[in-house]
Amino acid sequence: MTNMIDEIKDQIIEYLPEKVKLAKVEFEGPEIVIYTKNPEINKDHGDIIRALAKKIRKRIIIRSDKSVLSPPPETIDKVEEIVPTDADITDISFDDVTHEVIIESRKPGLVIGKYGTTSREILKQTGWTPKILRTPPINSETIQRIRLSLKRNSKERKEFLQKLGKRIRREPMFDNDWVRLTSLGGFREVGRSCLFLQTPNSKVILDCGVNVAGIDEKTAYPFLNVPEFNLQDLDAVIITHAHLDHTGFVPYLYHYGYDGPTYCTTPTRDMMTLLQQDHLDISHREDKPLPFNIKDVKETINKTITLDYGQVTDISPDIRLTLHDAGHIVGSAMAHLNIGDGKHNFLYTGDFKNEQSRLLGTPKQHFARIESMVMESTYGGREDNTPTRNTAEKELVKAIYDTIQKGGKILIPVFAVGRAQEIMIVLEEFINRGILGKVPVYLDGMIWEATAIHTAHPEFLSNELQKQIFHAGENPFTSDVFNKVTNNEQRRKLLESNEPCVILSTSGMLTGGNSVEYFKELCEDEKNRIIFVGYQSEGSLGRRIQKGFDEVPLEKDGVTQLFHINIEVTTIDGFSGHSDRKQLMEYVRKLSPKPDKILVCHGDAYKALDLASSIYRTYKIETKTPLNLETTRLQ
Amino acid sequence: MTNMIDEIKDQIIEYLPEKVKLAKVEFEGPEIVIYTKNPEINKDHGDIIRALAKKIRKRIIIRSDKSVLSPPPETIDKVEEIVPTDADITDISFDDVTHEVIIESRKPGLVIGKYGTTSREILKQTGWTPKILRTPPINSETIQRIRLSLKRNSKERKEFLQKLGKRIRREPMFDNDWVRLTSLGGFREVGRSCLFLQTPNSKVILDCGVNVAGIDEKTAYPFLNVPEFNLQDLDAVIITHAHLDHTGFVPYLYHYGYDGPTYCTTPTRDMMTLLQQDHLDISHREDKPLPFNIKDVKETINKTITLDYGQVTDISPDIRLTLHDAGHIVGSAMAHLNIGDGKHNFLYTGDFKNEQSRLLGTPKQHFARIESMVMESTYGGREDNTPTRNTAEKELVKAIYDTIQKGGKILIPVFAVGRAQEIMIVLEEFINRGILGKVPVYLDGMIWEATAIHTAHPEFLSNELQKQIFHAGENPFTSDVFNKVTNNEQRRKLLESNEPCVILSTSGMLTGGNSVEYFKELCEDEKNRIIFVGYQSEGSLGRRIQKGFDEVPLEKDGVTQLFHINIEVTTIDGFSGHSDRKQLMEYVRKLSPKPDKILVCHGDAYKALDLASSIYRTYKIETKTPLNLETTRLQ
Repeated sequence: MTNMIDEIKDQIIEYLPEKVKLAKVEFEGPEIVIYTKNPEINKDHGDIIRALAKKIRKRIIIRSDKSVLSPPPETIDKVEEIVPTDADITDISFDDVTHEVIIESRKPGLVIGKYGTTSREILKQTGWTPKILRTPPINSETIQRIRLSLKRNSKERKEFLQKLGKRIRREPMFDNDWVRLTSLGGFREVGRSCLFLQTPNSKVILDCGVNVAGIDEKTAYPFLNVPEFNLQDLDAVIITHAHLDHTGFVPYLYHYGYDGPTYCTTPTRDMMTLLQQDHLDISHREDKPLPFNIKDVKETINKTITLDYGQVTDISPDIRLTLHDAGHIVGSAMAHLNIGDGKHNFLYTGDFKNEQSRLLGTPKQHFARIESMVMESTYGGREDNTPTRNTAEKELVKAIYDTIQKGGKILIPVFAVGRAQEIMIVLEEFINRGILGKVPVYLDGMIWEATAIHTAHPEFLSNELQKQIFHAGENPFTSDVFNKVTNNEQRRKLLESNEPCVILSTSGMLTGGNSVEYFKELCEDEKNRIIFVGYQSEGSLGRRIQKGFDEVPLEKDGVTQLFHINIEVTTIDGFSGHSDRKQLMEYVRKLSPKPDKILVCHGDAYKALDLASSIYRTYKIETKTPLNLETTRLQ
Repeated sequence: MTNMIDEIKDQIIEYLPEKVKLAKVEFEGPEIVIYTKNPEINKDHGDIIRALAKKIRKRIIIRSDKSVLSPPPETIDKVEEIVPTDADITDISFDDVTHEVIIESRKPGLVIGKYGTTSREILKQTGWTPKILRTPPINSETIQRIRLSLKRNSKERKEFLQKLGKRIRREPMFDNDWVRLTSLGGFREVGRSCLFLQTPNSKVILDCGVNVAGIDEKTAYPFLNVPEFNLQDLDAVIITHAHLDHTGFVPYLYHYGYDGPTYCTTPTRDMMTLLQQDHLDISHREDKPLPFNIKDVKETINKTITLDYGQVTDISPDIRLTLHDAGHIVGSAMAHLNIGDGKHNFLYTGDFKNEQSRLLGTPKQHFARIESMVMESTYGGREDNTPTRNTAEKELVKAIYDTIQKGGKILIPVFAVGRAQEIMIVLEEFINRGILGKVPVYLDGMIWEATAIHTAHPEFLSNELQKQIFHAGENPFTSDVFNKVTNNEQRRKLLESNEPCVILSTSGMLTGGNSVEYFKELCEDEKNRIIFVGYQSEGSLGRRIQKGFDEVPLEKDGVTQLFHINIEVTTIDGFSGHSDRKQLMEYVRKLSPKPDKILVCHGDAYKALDLASSIYRTYKIETKTPLNLETTRLQ
């Protein structure tokens, strides 16, 4: 067996100009890291390095040998000299392990420079490789903690990446005769999404969620106890987006000994950390302990490798992963797996929204190849057609306007991630255009933190929004129409005021959280309005209100009281992050090339079957709706 | 955890009369063995013991404590005194480990006696438990070797059975929430049948065959290298019938460390041993070594537990197995699995013939419960309808008669097991009825030995045949119309003779063996006839002859020569051991109760799909045609 590192090192030496002194070539996870005593090569021979990377189909990172690193104080001076003041650097720190200078800036684009020139100049002059991070315009504790954790674990992480680099490049032992997919959760149901993909050489998990509505471990968690699944042999975990039904069980894998990577986008990593921590908090409060703890959430952070959309990455000897925009929530992705050097190509859509929204981009529809696909069917039933985004927005604005006119308050219960930000952008625009007056918008609960994470990743938002933020310098999220509510004093004050206002609060279905508290205060006054913009599940308080109950018993001050519902109740469909039936069918219609086989998941049995049968009848593509625990041959 | 042995011992003590002295109660595999110092209880309290067995739903065997065994010479005298001379005892031997006296007899029924009285009298008077075996009217080397091997391994076998007894009765660790079936071979194809059934508590293999037409290990052997399959966790191997496409890979399991049981009927054990040995011989001759050797075939014998049709047997903490007649070849069975105390009932048909034949019984069609079923589809295509057995027989006799009249010889190439014996019975009857004169029938190759094995197991033959053998004392297989051919001298003689004759010889498709040698000698004379009674696969010499080739190149005396085909060529359908399309559909129609789900296997992709779709359309039962390596949820 040839040593792949040596082989690649030989290729690099052959390729680079003679005077370049290579100190070391290493694999760090999927990337190749070149340590050199001439860090200027990156600047002076950038084209050669890019051409080399393309030739060997690997990402190449240039770092300096220890001997050529400038002392940190001198480096700080150099960085401040090279980078324009407008970049608004907030922090500079050093990583001794990776020889990186970590520069946090409010305008990271200016630290990178056009085509990366500024960044390469820093490397050339100081020896330190710049790692450039955005300082979010709204401070996010989650992101701070994540960045700190990664900084502290730099040494362990490097060892992990080096080990992983070798593992990914181990010699394949078998021919790629087949690809199988086992449904471990989220098939003919919504919740605990988990796909287990095997080839003769690799084993990969796609999503690993929990069903928060599950009543016991058999209904809440994926079926990880099947004999073919075994943590030691797992090559990779791939996460399509941050919601708990796709990420809630990832820490469990680490708790029970998984020590491999989790691949996802940076916003997904940040957002899933927030949601996993919150899940642990709630479970703790409700005295329903989860089978893992906060250490495992941290371990997940330390073992996560973030990928950009479109970045092709080797994750095992025979699988290359590429994430593509899915338009569901910030950082949400479709996962494309190129297996056995293109022998089979598999697409897992994850949750996706096949419609332009204000917040996000649209899902990718054109691929080089797809032979098989797994797609969601949350709204896959023939009756699941919702109004367009445009109609929904108009209804929303009209409802809010009417209530403001009456001097009432508007409560919008929302999920913290996705829906809340979508509504915020609509509100900000209509307030700015003077249509809703200067009505204040209050954000309560986790919404603020989730919004902060959005502001750290503008590259993952819609083009329109990026234009607004980068070019016009107008970030709707930092608008002063939004007010953060963090304590009861603030809550009391806003409720006591006679001014109309809009309150966005979690939970989205009034199953707990501050939205219920607001409801109690607002529900008996007919001037007020509650607006539902998301799905209300059967049995939830939200559902009962939607149905038109006259009164509901709720606890207040430790006593159960009857609350009369005089508040105006409005439901607006069309803000969902999921494609409706038309959009699902339309996605398959426009998808190119068409897969040979489509498996339908993430939907109630009836909806999954209905969508599968419609796709088969309309497009003559073989469809399947596996049960959990079934294994389907993809190739 | 309660000790099940103790629990059952308590039940037995409570149940039996006070004076009975229990020395020991042990599990030997699925059976309970009671060692007692009063062996007479079996005779005097037979009803109580049968009632007890029924109550605890286990088979009970009574054996004596060592202290009360008579000395062997005395025992032989006693046996000869008790058993009537007509029983024709051929051998008496002793097993010190099991305290059994092994009595081989030409008429074992007379050793057993009416309702077992004679046998129980032997136990009462000598202390030894009689194990009564039939001395086959045609001597079988295979059976001799198997019986000898079991005798020699008695001690190891007892230890194996005791260990197994405990394993079967281990406490179930999980709830029986699901049953899954993975297709490891023989799906959408014929050959290498292998089903892997898992519950949360057990793992079972049903059939483990090879595809003798496979070109390499990927096409010839089942997919045992899937991660969910692991020899250490395997509870049981169940074999439905002896053909190599269902049994050829069983020795491999033992070679790689399986040390659990194989369950099948006695004829299946004997016949599969013959076929496995032959497979090794041929592979050796052709220098294509198999991944196991003769030791593993012996190990298979020693680990096999034989079951009668209808005998309910615990094979794991949550699975009870019952074999039922399948009518395919002698000893062939359908396997019924009662899972989780009746929570789910699964039927695997194996290969089956849904038509009364002369040789065998018909498949069972009424069950207490079936929720899911796997059925074969060898002739499942809509065009796969064959003449009735009756029509086929008439055609056969007519063809033979015509050739005899012309003074020619008739060559019938046949598979050694099943088809050969079916044809023998037809010939014997028509010769005896004077329709075909006194034409001699020559049996060449493995046919004789396979026939000998049939004669050892008349209980597994058709009722008609049993009547003929037991009551009329006329065993068609021992008729003097049949002549055994074992050497070239005999072959030369029968070919040189001017007398007409019928020659049955293997292989059935003229792909090797003596049938080809006979063909070379007979094919150029138009007086002779070759009759095909079985399937000729594409590319075989048989197929080319069937198609009407004028000449074929064949090797003779080390040189390839052209042979002109003047021999009359006749093909007679209708002798197949497989159900044709009508019979398959008819089986489902009559089956009661109807399963909720039917999986179709053991047929070319087109035939499997066609049968599945017809069953769905006709009976509205959900059908599936999984690919190899797929896993289907049964419950």
